[in-house]
Amino acid sequence: MPRKIVVIGAGGAGLTAASTAREHNPEAKIDVFTEDEYIAYSPCAVIYAIEGVIEDFDSIIMHTPEYYGKKRNISVHTKTKVASVDVDKKIVNVADGTSMPYDALVLATGGRMFVPPIEGVKLPGVYTIKHVAEGKAMKAALKKTDCVVIVGAGVIGLMMAVAVRNLGKKVTVLERYPNVIPRIIDEDMSAIVQKHCEGLGIKFVMGTPITAIKGKEKVESAVAGGKEYPCGMVIMATGVRANLELPNQMGLEIGQLGAVRASTTLQPYRNDHLVSDIYVAGDMIMCESAATPGPIMSQLGSTAVRQGRVAGINAAGGYATYPAALSPWVTYLGEIQAAGTGLSKGLAEYFGLSIVEGKAVGLTRARYYPGGKEITAKIIADKETHRILGAQLVGGEEVTGRINWMTGAILNNVTVEEFVTSYENAYCPPTSMVKDVVNQAAEVLMAKLNGSK
Amino acid sequence: MPRKIVVIGAGGAGLTAASTAREHNPEAKIDVFTEDEYIAYSPCAVIYAIEGVIEDFDSIIMHTPEYYGKKRNISVHTKTKVASVDVDKKIVNVADGTSMPYDALVLATGGRMFVPPIEGVKLPGVYTIKHVAEGKAMKAALKKTDCVVIVGAGVIGLMMAVAVRNLGKKVTVLERYPNVIPRIIDEDMSAIVQKHCEGLGIKFVMGTPITAIKGKEKVESAVAGGKEYPCGMVIMATGVRANLELPNQMGLEIGQLGAVRASTTLQPYRNDHLVSDIYVAGDMIMCESAATPGPIMSQLGSTAVRQGRVAGINAAGGYATYPAALSPWVTYLGEIQAAGTGLSKGLAEYFGLSIVEGKAVGLTRARYYPGGKEITAKIIADKETHRILGAQLVGGEEVTGRINWMTGAILNNVTVEEFVTSYENAYCPPTSMVKDVVNQAAEVLMAKLNGSK
Repeated sequence: MPRKIVVIGAGGAGLTAASTAREHNPEAKIDVFTEDEYIAYSPCAVIYAIEGVIEDFDSIIMHTPEYYGKKRNISVHTKTKVASVDVDKKIVNVADGTSMPYDALVLATGGRMFVPPIEGVKLPGVYTIKHVAEGKAMKAALKKTDCVVIVGAGVIGLMMAVAVRNLGKKVTVLERYPNVIPRIIDEDMSAIVQKHCEGLGIKFVMGTPITAIKGKEKVESAVAGGKEYPCGMVIMATGVRANLELPNQMGLEIGQLGAVRASTTLQPYRNDHLVSDIYVAGDMIMCESAATPGPIMSQLGSTAVRQGRVAGINAAGGYATYPAALSPWVTYLGEIQAAGTGLSKGLAEYFGLSIVEGKAVGLTRARYYPGGKEITAKIIADKETHRILGAQLVGGEEVTGRINWMTGAILNNVTVEEFVTSYENAYCPPTSMVKDVVNQAAEVLMAKLNGSK
Repeated sequence: MPRKIVVIGAGGAGLTAASTAREHNPEAKIDVFTEDEYIAYSPCAVIYAIEGVIEDFDSIIMHTPEYYGKKRNISVHTKTKVASVDVDKKIVNVADGTSMPYDALVLATGGRMFVPPIEGVKLPGVYTIKHVAEGKAMKAALKKTDCVVIVGAGVIGLMMAVAVRNLGKKVTVLERYPNVIPRIIDEDMSAIVQKHCEGLGIKFVMGTPITAIKGKEKVESAVAGGKEYPCGMVIMATGVRANLELPNQMGLEIGQLGAVRASTTLQPYRNDHLVSDIYVAGDMIMCESAATPGPIMSQLGSTAVRQGRVAGINAAGGYATYPAALSPWVTYLGEIQAAGTGLSKGLAEYFGLSIVEGKAVGLTRARYYPGGKEITAKIIADKETHRILGAQLVGGEEVTGRINWMTGAILNNVTVEEFVTSYENAYCPPTSMVKDVVNQAAEVLMAKLNGSK
C-alpha cells in the first residue's frame, strides 16, 4: 500500500511540503486541500499585480492544480474546506461530508488577516490584502477612488502605500506606533524609510491608532486621534494571525504567541505529547529564535518554503529538522530596500538583553563609480558576550545578499571581534566599496564595545 | 618622544596602515614613502578611467598627499624611493641619501606586473595596467589604434577587454589556459563568462600562450600558437608578483608562493625568527587559507585594506590579527558579474581534497517580477566532512552580497547539511526568488552527498 499523505493548505508551506514529499516518495498518494480558488502564489505578489508592475494576476501563480496533477501526481482539491481532523483515527473530514484517511498529515493553513473590531470596518470599501480574489476586487475599486487610507505601517502596509501612490492616488498611512515597520526595525532606520516614503508623496499619521471608519453606504473617511481623514478606500494592513480553526478543533497546543507550538521536526504537541504523523508549517506555527532563547513567529514566504520542505520530508517518512529561525526579511519600497535579521533593539529589550549598536552610512559602489546609492547598515550585539544578535539595512540596491550574510554570522554565534577580524568582503568598484558598509558598521560597533573611538 | 612610524608603500595597504595607526595613536610621527606620483587609488579603477566610465583619472584618487598632511598629520613622500632598510638599527635609507629612524615599520610595497620575457615585449605599444601614469598613456594611445590584443584572460584581462571593446576596438584575448579566469573558477562557470564576453564581440584564443610580439618600431602583431594576430596595441594582463626588492635586501623570509611569509600579526620572519616592529601587508605577502591548511596570496584591494588595518594597529602599539583569508572577489564585465570565494575545483585538487559540487541556475528576482536576470550558483564541499570549501557565482546583479554570505559560511566551517537546514534567505519578489539560488545549489549538493537525487 502506498503511503497516504494529506496536506491541508496550498500556500508556500503546503505546496512545498507536497512537492518535497513527492520527491522523497515516488509511490505515495498525495492530496492537498485548500479553501482558496487560486494556489501557489506569493501573497506579497498580489500587491505588485494590483499596482500593475506585474501585468496580470495569472502570472503570479506559479503552477495550477492541473500542473500538480499531471507533473507531480499530486491531487489538489481547491475550494474544498476541511471541517475537522480526527487525530486518533487519522482521518480528515471534508466539509462536503466525504473523508480521507492519512498516514501522514501536513497542516499548513497559514494565517488570517487581523482586522481590529472598530466601527465601520465592515463597510464596502474596506479591504485586506492576501488573496488573489481580494486583490482583483481592490484593483477594480481603485479605479473609482482617488484617496486611500492605509492602516498599519508595517512592511505590507508600506508596500501597499507605495503601490497605491504609484497609481497616482492620495495616500495616508495611519500607524499606532511612533515609527514605521515598528518593533522589527529601530527608530533611526525607520526614519530613513519614512522620509523616503514621504518623498514619494505618502502622508503618515504616526502614534495614532484608527478608531473608526465612517460612511453611509460605503467608506467616506477614517478616524484617528479624533481627526477625520476623508477617503474612498481603507486598506487594513494590521497584521496576520495564525489560523487556529483546525488546530483548536484537533486539540493542538497553542504557544504564548498565539500559534501552534512545534518541535524541531515540526510536529505539534497535544496533551503534552508530540503528535505522531502530523507536521505543521508556515504562518500558523511558532518556533525557536536562533538569536536568543525564546519563541518567534516567522510569517514569511521564505520561511514557509523552508518549513514546508522539512514537513514534506518527514511526512514522506524521512527525517529533517527546522531548528530555529532568524526571519531575515527584505522589502522594496520604490527605489529603496529595507531589510532586517535577528533581533532589533525593541526585540532585544523584550528578551531582556543589553545591547550595543554600530552603524555606518556608505555607498553601494565605489565613491567615484557612477550610479552608487546610499546604504545604511546597523549591527546589534550583546553587550556581555559581544555576539551579533541582529542587523538592519536600508539602501538603494544590493541589500538582500548583505542581510543573508549577516544572518549566517548570527546563526554561527559570531562575535563582533570575529566579524571584524575574519569576515572579508568581496570588492569591485561597480558593486561595493573597498570596505563594505557592513564591515564599517562592525568596526564602529567593536570600537564602542571596547570603549575607544 | 612620540612613536615614529614609517610606512613604505602608498596603496590600499600602506595608506590604511598609516590612517589606522593615526586613529590608534594621535601622538605618533607618521611618514609614508612611495615611488609613485599618485596615491590612494584602486588599480582596477584605472581601467574604468581608461574606458571613460569614470570621467577622469583625478576622480579615482581618494585623497592627495596634502589631504593626509592636513587632515591626518601624516607626511606622504611621493616619488621617493627607499633604497634599503637597516633592520638591526631600525633605519630607513632613502635613495636621495637621507635616512629616517623608526620605532615601527610597515612594509607595503605591493606587487609588480609580471611580464613574460618574450620577443618584442619592450616594443612601444605594449602596456601593463596598474598605475595611473600607465593608464593615462594607454588612454591616449588607444585613440590611435583600432585593434588590441590582450594577453591573459584573468579578471584584470577580462575587465580590460570589456573596457577596450566598449571603446569600439577589435579585441582579441590570448590565454594559455583552456578557460577564462583560470584556476580561480571552474570550467563550467568560466564558460558562462566567456560566452557573455564573446557576445560583446570579444574574440578568445584559448589554451595558447603568446610567444612573441612583432613590429618594427612599434607593435604590429602578437604571435600565439604559430598564428599572427595583427594589432596596434598589446596589453599584458599576465598577473602580479610580489615586489621583493626590499624584502630580499632586508633578508625577510620568502614563502613557497614567492611572497613574504607573515605571522597572523603580519610580522615577517628573518633568520627563522619573527621580526619585532616590522609589519607587512598587501600584494607582497602570503598568508594562511581559511578554507584548508595551506598558504595563499590574496592580491585584492579589499584584502589590502584589511591587512593594512591590522598592520596599522600593531605598528601603533596595539594588537590585532589577520588569521587567514578566503579571498572573496567579484568582477563586473558589462552586465554580468562573476565572483568566487574559498577553493575552486582546481585549487581543491591542488590541496589534495576530494570534493563534490552542487549547482543551480535561478533568477535574481521572482520569476514573474520584471527585470530579473539569470544567476548561476555553484558550491563546492569536502566529500569526507561535507564542509563547504568554496563557492562561485555568475549573474546579472546582486552577486557581491551572496559571495560574502558564502564566505561567512566557509569561515565558520559550515557543512552543506547545516547550510540547508539553517541558512535562511531573505525574500521579496523584486530582489530574490523565494528560495534563493544559493540555497537551491546547497540542496542539490546535499542530495549528491547523500547519494539521492
